[in-house]
Amino acid sequence: MPTLILLRHGQSRWNLEDRFTGWVDVDLTPEGEAQATKGGELIAQAGVAIDRCFTSVLTRAIRTSWLALAAAGQTYVPETKDWRLNERHYGGLTGLNKAETAAKHGEAQVKVWRRSYDVPPPEMAPDSEYAFEGDRRYAGLKLPATESLKTTLERVQPYWDAEIAPKLAAGETLLVAAHGNSLRAIVKLLFDISDEAIIGVEIPTGNPLLIDLDGSLKPTAARYLDAARATALPAV
Amino acid sequence: MPTLILLRHGQSRWNLEDRFTGWVDVDLTPEGEAQATKGGELIAQAGVAIDRCFTSVLTRAIRTSWLALAAAGQTYVPETKDWRLNERHYGGLTGLNKAETAAKHGEAQVKVWRRSYDVPPPEMAPDSEYAFEGDRRYAGLKLPATESLKTTLERVQPYWDAEIAPKLAAGETLLVAAHGNSLRAIVKLLFDISDEAIIGVEIPTGNPLLIDLDGSLKPTAARYLDAARATALPAV
Repeated sequence: MPTLILLRHGQSRWNLEDRFTGWVDVDLTPEGEAQATKGGELIAQAGVAIDRCFTSVLTRAIRTSWLALAAAGQTYVPETKDWRLNERHYGGLTGLNKAETAAKHGEAQVKVWRRSYDVPPPEMAPDSEYAFEGDRRYAGLKLPATESLKTTLERVQPYWDAEIAPKLAAGETLLVAAHGNSLRAIVKLLFDISDEAIIGVEIPTGNPLLIDLDGSLKPTAARYLDAARATALPAV
Repeated sequence: MPTLILLRHGQSRWNLEDRFTGWVDVDLTPEGEAQATKGGELIAQAGVAIDRCFTSVLTRAIRTSWLALAAAGQTYVPETKDWRLNERHYGGLTGLNKAETAAKHGEAQVKVWRRSYDVPPPEMAPDSEYAFEGDRRYAGLKLPATESLKTTLERVQPYWDAEIAPKLAAGETLLVAAHGNSLRAIVKLLFDISDEAIIGVEIPTGNPLLIDLDGSLKPTAARYLDAARATALPAV
């Protein structure tokens, strides 16, 4: 039967500084690298043979997949990278830390952005130092200027439907190494979670979430491989 | 115009022990990792933007590509892994070091195997501890039991023609991270080198070989990015 492993990237430099990262290509910290390696060791210990790996075009997720595959002894697994698995685009909040954001927009507004499903932050200014228009990995794409979790899901879903779900339907075991919000989108789709409830779902970093699926890709079981660092899981 | 970078994997554990490795999936040493990272730094310094990466299904070449792409700041480049870029299969010599090989087969015979284009070593025994038949990365393939450089080229060439050459013909810049003999095969094809002369071509580890090609994929210039560690290059 199909098996899906979701793996959130390990700690990045901006996680450490508590800054909104989104699409900025910040690398892992040594701690983040260790988390990814640990994730791969847990996959090996669980005896899971991965058929294919999907990741974003952001270094922290890509290197998480590489470190995990190496630690699992499965470097040779085919891998596909796609921007539609990127982290949510934080628009005008990109690069700000928690204190800067609160000073600029007020605590109440920040809570709205953090806790709502469909309210996006302000758009990124076209002349922002972080603007992604010149980045060749996005050449030819119409890029968002900001995203809510809802609009993040709206670009994850077509990729899921076209590229990931068919491989699962063929019985493959897949690793998706990605980001807090692109993984939330996948969990929402798979477990049919409400707009309100998905905001409360927190996927821990570097802890592989193993999901068994039936032939119609409904989850039949789900568990974190590092049980000591598990968070609450949606019911199956 | 099309550009090709050939990158031989850095030092592996068995390079260090001077053992015939071939298809055995031996990892890089820390020195080999540093060589791969240096190769990526040289690619970044040369200002080369890679469009696509090809590598084998062996960890030492795959991790060389990963370390080089990371050091070049180009982790997001699409990558394809294929067994046809593997190292030459050393058959019954696999796992033996230089002294063991000479003791078992005689110095004269070892020289013939090392210096001939088309004489393969004895076949690997079906019950060898290194037999690759059960390895899932080769599932469904008819595997060789030994290879000469000639038969190595005969499986590299169809992959080159079908997957790599068309991307170059489309004007892409490619990185091929592979092995001493699969890279020799590519160099022989590209530079039209004789069976006798190719044996003397030694590609240094971790030193990117940058080849400019014309529209019909004939080399117009070639240089190693680490000039201090360059070996003699075929004429263009």
